[in-house]
Amino acid sequence: MKVVNVTRPGGPEALETGAAPDPTPGPREVIIAVEAAGVNRADLLQRAGHYPPPPGAPPWPGLEAAGTITALGTEVGAAARGPADDAVAGWAVGDRVCALLPGGGYAERVAVDASLVLPMPAGTDAVGAAGLVEAACTVVSNLDAAGAHPGETLLVHGGSGGVGSLAIQYATALGMRVLATAGGPERAARCVELGAEAGLDHRGDWAARVKERGGADVILDVAGAANLDANLRSLRTGGRLVVIGLQRGTRGEIDLGRLLSRRLTLLGTTLRSRPLAERAAIVAAVRERVWPLVPGRVSPVIHATVPLERAADAHRLLDSGEVFGKVVLTVGAPDGADAS
Amino acid sequence: MKVVNVTRPGGPEALETGAAPDPTPGPREVIIAVEAAGVNRADLLQRAGHYPPPPGAPPWPGLEAAGTITALGTEVGAAARGPADDAVAGWAVGDRVCALLPGGGYAERVAVDASLVLPMPAGTDAVGAAGLVEAACTVVSNLDAAGAHPGETLLVHGGSGGVGSLAIQYATALGMRVLATAGGPERAARCVELGAEAGLDHRGDWAARVKERGGADVILDVAGAANLDANLRSLRTGGRLVVIGLQRGTRGEIDLGRLLSRRLTLLGTTLRSRPLAERAAIVAAVRERVWPLVPGRVSPVIHATVPLERAADAHRLLDSGEVFGKVVLTVGAPDGADAS
Repeated sequence: MKVVNVTRPGGPEALETGAAPDPTPGPREVIIAVEAAGVNRADLLQRAGHYPPPPGAPPWPGLEAAGTITALGTEVGAAARGPADDAVAGWAVGDRVCALLPGGGYAERVAVDASLVLPMPAGTDAVGAAGLVEAACTVVSNLDAAGAHPGETLLVHGGSGGVGSLAIQYATALGMRVLATAGGPERAARCVELGAEAGLDHRGDWAARVKERGGADVILDVAGAANLDANLRSLRTGGRLVVIGLQRGTRGEIDLGRLLSRRLTLLGTTLRSRPLAERAAIVAAVRERVWPLVPGRVSPVIHATVPLERAADAHRLLDSGEVFGKVVLTVGAPDGADAS
Repeated sequence: MKVVNVTRPGGPEALETGAAPDPTPGPREVIIAVEAAGVNRADLLQRAGHYPPPPGAPPWPGLEAAGTITALGTEVGAAARGPADDAVAGWAVGDRVCALLPGGGYAERVAVDASLVLPMPAGTDAVGAAGLVEAACTVVSNLDAAGAHPGETLLVHGGSGGVGSLAIQYATALGMRVLATAGGPERAARCVELGAEAGLDHRGDWAARVKERGGADVILDVAGAANLDANLRSLRTGGRLVVIGLQRGTRGEIDLGRLLSRRLTLLGTTLRSRPLAERAAIVAAVRERVWPLVPGRVSPVIHATVPLERAADAHRLLDSGEVFGKVVLTVGAPDGADAS
């Protein structure tokens, strides 16, 4: 099958189309014929050599994909269903699905543990589904980790990103009040269209704007060190800052006095490094809590689709800072001719 | 009545014995004739002018006291008991009690909201009770905030302090594995006598010793900035660092990359600044979960008692770094003659 792999770590040109053996399903896996694969910032890090895939995952990038199930492992599916293992049961060849992947989405086919598979949400095609999975899992797991609840104020940094655009919609649907930052007034205004009460230019004094609005109970941050002090100043007493990205720095100074006097919590998380059982629980939560909101209250925000073979262009696009929402790779229907 | 107040912020000599009007109970308060009042590091900060008492609290220090109830507010006690307000019900004049105070323990009498009052634990006198309340509330609320549970490993910094010596005993009784740091091998050895699996000299490379033992799931820290990086290195994946003191610095550098890759949580808390309802809930949790363990599994560790009038000596003692456990002020039985 066709894959797009990293020949040697580097810039977008490091991505090259190549061939790999077709995957065969492990006992608890399904094979998905990929029609669409989301592009994430983690893929850019992996391409640059900073985010190696976990053991057992394919070496090529891709944390989410959507398509059709073409094969089932021996323990998966209606015929194999046991009484005590709903996590991998219920799938059939031909099901239209999407999945959270530990890697390997940049390919015509991918093997994935059946507990990480979801049906495509209602009214959504493969592109939309592939653009939702990773963001939905990220948002749900981190709002849960922060103990976010309706009525609280959420500040979303990178409201124009794939995670941010989903976070605005989902948190608004939950009954949270949402403030969002983005690069420049036009992108900030689009955050308001998605449901945010206010869109703030992250190049301005957004912390002052947040404080004018009473502060935030929860912050979802992708910038890391550059935002750390201003984020802590923006939190209300008892507030929680969840750092899920380090786009603007890793090491920063922290004022623990503020942490104590305001009883603040700082959490850092990544999704891919979690044990399978935790990722499966997150996928189940997304299916239960996000999928019923799609489409309508929550819709994928797709900036562009790019053919798999031009994944390097997709990376350049995401690097440009001009993307609003997701970039999704599209994969030609497999014809078997290129299977090795 | 006699009180020990801060004439002007400064060293221990700033504490002076004086007179103040006897308190009268608010509707939901009780008056306690104080026999013993615990000394806390926060009192030293308050004396130095760095930790002003919250609005409504007496200006003199003292976050915990024990003695006998001498008067009840109109809404407190059996006669006033309503069906829906157990928090302040059930107290009677003559009850032997202790209480978590927002301030004002350095006095012959103190008025306190009845929801912050506890019976003296079984087998414990006023000195022991006054030496337990604040530490127990601190430990229970912070282990809860960290989501600590049996089987996990807890690292207690300042195991020789009032909070630390209680944390070792309580967490051990909970079924946690406890490591503790203290200043020097002898004090570290006493932590082991209290139940710690290992006592580590905090002047050595304790982080290396913790890692040799598999790392910590939860850390209770009183040092702040000086320990920050080593604490984060000592945590297992998913670990939680709770900073409850800043004895060795407020501002420090943090490696957010470690936070993300290990999915760590950093919390800062103080007890005194919390809303009354939260403090009352903590007091109720201490009564339910700590008091049944006293004495036996959990006992007060009293380093010294000092008469109230010599509070300055008590502060000097705590400042010396030679204390193991608590220093408790003792108060002569009130005779009414000095009431103004």
